[in-house]
Amino acid sequence: MTDSPFLFERLTVIGIGLIGSSILRAARERGLARMLVAADAKPAVRERVREIGIADEVADDLASAVAGADCVICCVPPGSFGVVAEAIAPHLMVGAIVSDTGSVKGAVIAQMAPHLPLGVHLVPAHPVAGTEHSGPDAGFAELFINRWCIFTPPEGAEEAAVAKLRAFWEGLGSRVEIMSAEHHDLVLAITSHVPHLIAYNIVGTADDLEAVTQSEVIKFSAGGFRDFTRIAASDPTMWRDVFLNNKKAVLEVLGRFSEDLAYLQRAIRWGEGDKLFELFTRTRAVRRSIIEIGQETAEPDFGRPHGKPAK
Amino acid sequence: MTDSPFLFERLTVIGIGLIGSSILRAARERGLARMLVAADAKPAVRERVREIGIADEVADDLASAVAGADCVICCVPPGSFGVVAEAIAPHLMVGAIVSDTGSVKGAVIAQMAPHLPLGVHLVPAHPVAGTEHSGPDAGFAELFINRWCIFTPPEGAEEAAVAKLRAFWEGLGSRVEIMSAEHHDLVLAITSHVPHLIAYNIVGTADDLEAVTQSEVIKFSAGGFRDFTRIAASDPTMWRDVFLNNKKAVLEVLGRFSEDLAYLQRAIRWGEGDKLFELFTRTRAVRRSIIEIGQETAEPDFGRPHGKPAK
Repeated sequence: MTDSPFLFERLTVIGIGLIGSSILRAARERGLARMLVAADAKPAVRERVREIGIADEVADDLASAVAGADCVICCVPPGSFGVVAEAIAPHLMVGAIVSDTGSVKGAVIAQMAPHLPLGVHLVPAHPVAGTEHSGPDAGFAELFINRWCIFTPPEGAEEAAVAKLRAFWEGLGSRVEIMSAEHHDLVLAITSHVPHLIAYNIVGTADDLEAVTQSEVIKFSAGGFRDFTRIAASDPTMWRDVFLNNKKAVLEVLGRFSEDLAYLQRAIRWGEGDKLFELFTRTRAVRRSIIEIGQETAEPDFGRPHGKPAK
Repeated sequence: MTDSPFLFERLTVIGIGLIGSSILRAARERGLARMLVAADAKPAVRERVREIGIADEVADDLASAVAGADCVICCVPPGSFGVVAEAIAPHLMVGAIVSDTGSVKGAVIAQMAPHLPLGVHLVPAHPVAGTEHSGPDAGFAELFINRWCIFTPPEGAEEAAVAKLRAFWEGLGSRVEIMSAEHHDLVLAITSHVPHLIAYNIVGTADDLEAVTQSEVIKFSAGGFRDFTRIAASDPTMWRDVFLNNKKAVLEVLGRFSEDLAYLQRAIRWGEGDKLFELFTRTRAVRRSIIEIGQETAEPDFGRPHGKPAK
């Protein structure tokens, strides 16, 4: 095997949405696996993956998908990990690496680990990357470049397996960071989960206001609202599962958010402009830092087109 | 005057930030005024406007800036309208149109109208356009193209003055809508003001969390958080003034937002996935509508660059 030009001989990706299809495309482009195998619960998705030809093999069942695979990456919503782990466990090859791309890590480990046989290496991973689009056509090979992929290997995980998966993600263009599942879930609660929840929420509040028509909300959305609609257009199944599976950290961060919002609300009611000004100045610096480390574009308005209909 | 190829003979813009400087650039490009006059309270801004040459004349005081002007547009923060109106009132030409670009209209009218002499036409306007950048260098001529400009003329406003200002904004590329100041302030509370407040707030909450380092927040911001940092990088003075001057509508919409968020929080705590799924599906449709009417790009991730460091 050490003579192989490939990192993996048979890489199986389960769940071919935005993330799964991006992994397949990028792995092929970078020559990271000899054979790329795709599996998906939905016949229509399997059909589409065959049409666009992003895998060498599209398996109709999980047993044949994972048989002989030296790496299996599950890109399914966080609520489906247990079912998938149970289905693939009897068919996994000894020495195989089993990984995932779930946005929640504690619950995912709790759901998968009990099913996996001895001799199989579970190395949970979370690429912090994505767009608001879903499905096999939404993926693209460049998605992971310069984005972080967080590994949360359980205690006692085999170092060689972690190193190999690291080489794979670095091959996709990512930077890898290792932390505990618990810390990951708290970090992502603030950097991803609660931001998504409040985006979904403000879009819902706007949709429900009786005194302002939906047409007005849509027409005048360039005042800021439209920014929130992007992440509020993300996959509903995945995001439902994220919140149900990262309850503790999300509720904790949400409590802080609401407390801080109440402080601002009170400052507005009592006309305390200095409190508002202090916060609004501090938040500017955070964006500058994100741009400086290359995780955001410096272009105004995200580089949106100006001067023509934004079609 | 009807023989003039220009809509205005002498157009004075007071406050040369993102909006004021964009008006000057666009008005020159479209040939909408014979003479463009700029005024700003800050000597450094006046100096910079002279350097970049976006006005024909840079006035050092408001009296000379507005003398002889047939249109005066105040692009200052909503807290400064009263002071500016008081200063310019004795020097305004009879028949002049006085307008503004404030994000709040009720309070702006209340601050300006009492100072203005008879024979001067107050036509408040609000271009729903902008970026997170500020200052005279941030402006560009295309900013208003295909964006809405909302007029809130007080009762009894002269139709000819409204029509002339409409021709001006349409000349800049905007579409004009007319509504009451009160309704404007409610519409903008949901489409702009409260979205900005919750963006500022989540960035503040993240900055304050002890258990997650600032470096982690910044590194993993591509999970959604970085979207919020854009509008939380907007001008602090202007936004402080917006909240202090649109208190009633902001507090009303904020109450709805918090109520709706408590509903989601409870659904998460009790594992009611169907409630989350219902909302997350509904919000997708809102984004589609915004894209369909050309107020948002259809490109995934706002068209941000992928595949290279986002510099």
